[in-house]
Amino acid sequence: MRFTSDQRLDDGVVERGFTLGEIPGILWTPESGSGPLILMGHPGGVDGMSPRLASRARLSVGQGFTAATIELPGSGDRPRSAEADEARAELRRALAAGEPVDEIVERLVSPLVDQAVPEWQAALDALLSLPEVDGPVGYSGGVIAIGIRLAVVEPRIAAAVLFAGSFVPRSMFDEARRVAIPLHVLLQWDDEGNDREQSLELFDAFGSEEKSLHANMGGHTGVPPWEGDSANRFFARHLRRTA
Amino acid sequence: MRFTSDQRLDDGVVERGFTLGEIPGILWTPESGSGPLILMGHPGGVDGMSPRLASRARLSVGQGFTAATIELPGSGDRPRSAEADEARAELRRALAAGEPVDEIVERLVSPLVDQAVPEWQAALDALLSLPEVDGPVGYSGGVIAIGIRLAVVEPRIAAAVLFAGSFVPRSMFDEARRVAIPLHVLLQWDDEGNDREQSLELFDAFGSEEKSLHANMGGHTGVPPWEGDSANRFFARHLRRTA
Repeated sequence: MRFTSDQRLDDGVVERGFTLGEIPGILWTPESGSGPLILMGHPGGVDGMSPRLASRARLSVGQGFTAATIELPGSGDRPRSAEADEARAELRRALAAGEPVDEIVERLVSPLVDQAVPEWQAALDALLSLPEVDGPVGYSGGVIAIGIRLAVVEPRIAAAVLFAGSFVPRSMFDEARRVAIPLHVLLQWDDEGNDREQSLELFDAFGSEEKSLHANMGGHTGVPPWEGDSANRFFARHLRRTA
Repeated sequence: MRFTSDQRLDDGVVERGFTLGEIPGILWTPESGSGPLILMGHPGGVDGMSPRLASRARLSVGQGFTAATIELPGSGDRPRSAEADEARAELRRALAAGEPVDEIVERLVSPLVDQAVPEWQAALDALLSLPEVDGPVGYSGGVIAIGIRLAVVEPRIAAAVLFAGSFVPRSMFDEARRVAIPLHVLLQWDDEGNDREQSLELFDAFGSEEKSLHANMGGHTGVPPWEGDSANRFFARHLRRTA
């Protein structure tokens, strides 16, 4: 893990770029002290996502956590995958045409999860070796399928905030039933790209004893501002650090 | 409106019993100052409900509100209705037998709403004339059908926290579509007596531009403790009083 940039933001949050092998990432920490880590999931393309990621991260740091993210395989400046690019284009076409997408989602998301999850675990190894970063760890965001796999295979992940979406391969529903950590699931009721029924079915499938669904009006990017606060309160309960 | 009892609870909340004509009620206020009013809905039987009602009310007063409730028609010490008692017994039998309940709910709940809503409005008149009670007003709880009617007909109600349930007469779904105030809806995912699909259908039907659904695991009385806090934060946003 090698730091590539370092800046102090105006709210006192320190934002550092890093690379982990060929994988770029960002770490947000307080100016001093340490905090439990929240891994910030996203749909790929950290540079384009970074204003939204940074604002989620800064809110979390303000409430006593640290936050980090890494680029997804095939996104941003990382080597593209012809198969993934083709599946992504097919998915857009099928969604626009209102056609079924299950098979395409399987072909797009399953290999992504298989490749990304070990990378997030390697990032965890590196991040948790820093003095300012503590466990237990939370995962927050999409890609929800990555969050599901991490929740099942990675014991350092103690709680997760998942953005409900229907882009979870049907083959992963069994895995969802094996999730046992506390979950806080966000659903946008009128999400253009997501099938509401399938999102509710997925929420129902999760094996966790404690799981909450917060559904709000509006489209994919319309999560209301108070949900950020609510997610951090959830993490505060489970990562044992109060605001 | 006549006060019948007055006690200071150990957290400094003042709990006063009152009667409004023949209808008993309870008012919770801070020791000094005033706050926007939250009407506390309940399924009837204020005496039996009062420990849970009082704990919800004290949390609200602690966050800058005042709270009040009145007994429902046909419940507690109020004159019974033979028709309602019969319908209630039929409902219990039908639920236990897994039989459809739509017709019984119609017969039980519609007259209750017709009778109760003007009583809650009369209580509002009396309560808002007290110097320690301010508007705008919130409604919190079940009977959800009473909350729906109040949200539609009573302009002093500015926001509502509703406990989602399927015991809403089908004839009131059109009324639900006319609700326009911000709503915060609680759903217990495994509620024994409630049909989850019908609760989700009702949530979908509400006409409000801002509505959130918070679904949690467990049965009817298993609403997790942090939801009280979350509901008060919702009221703070809409009744314009911060904690």
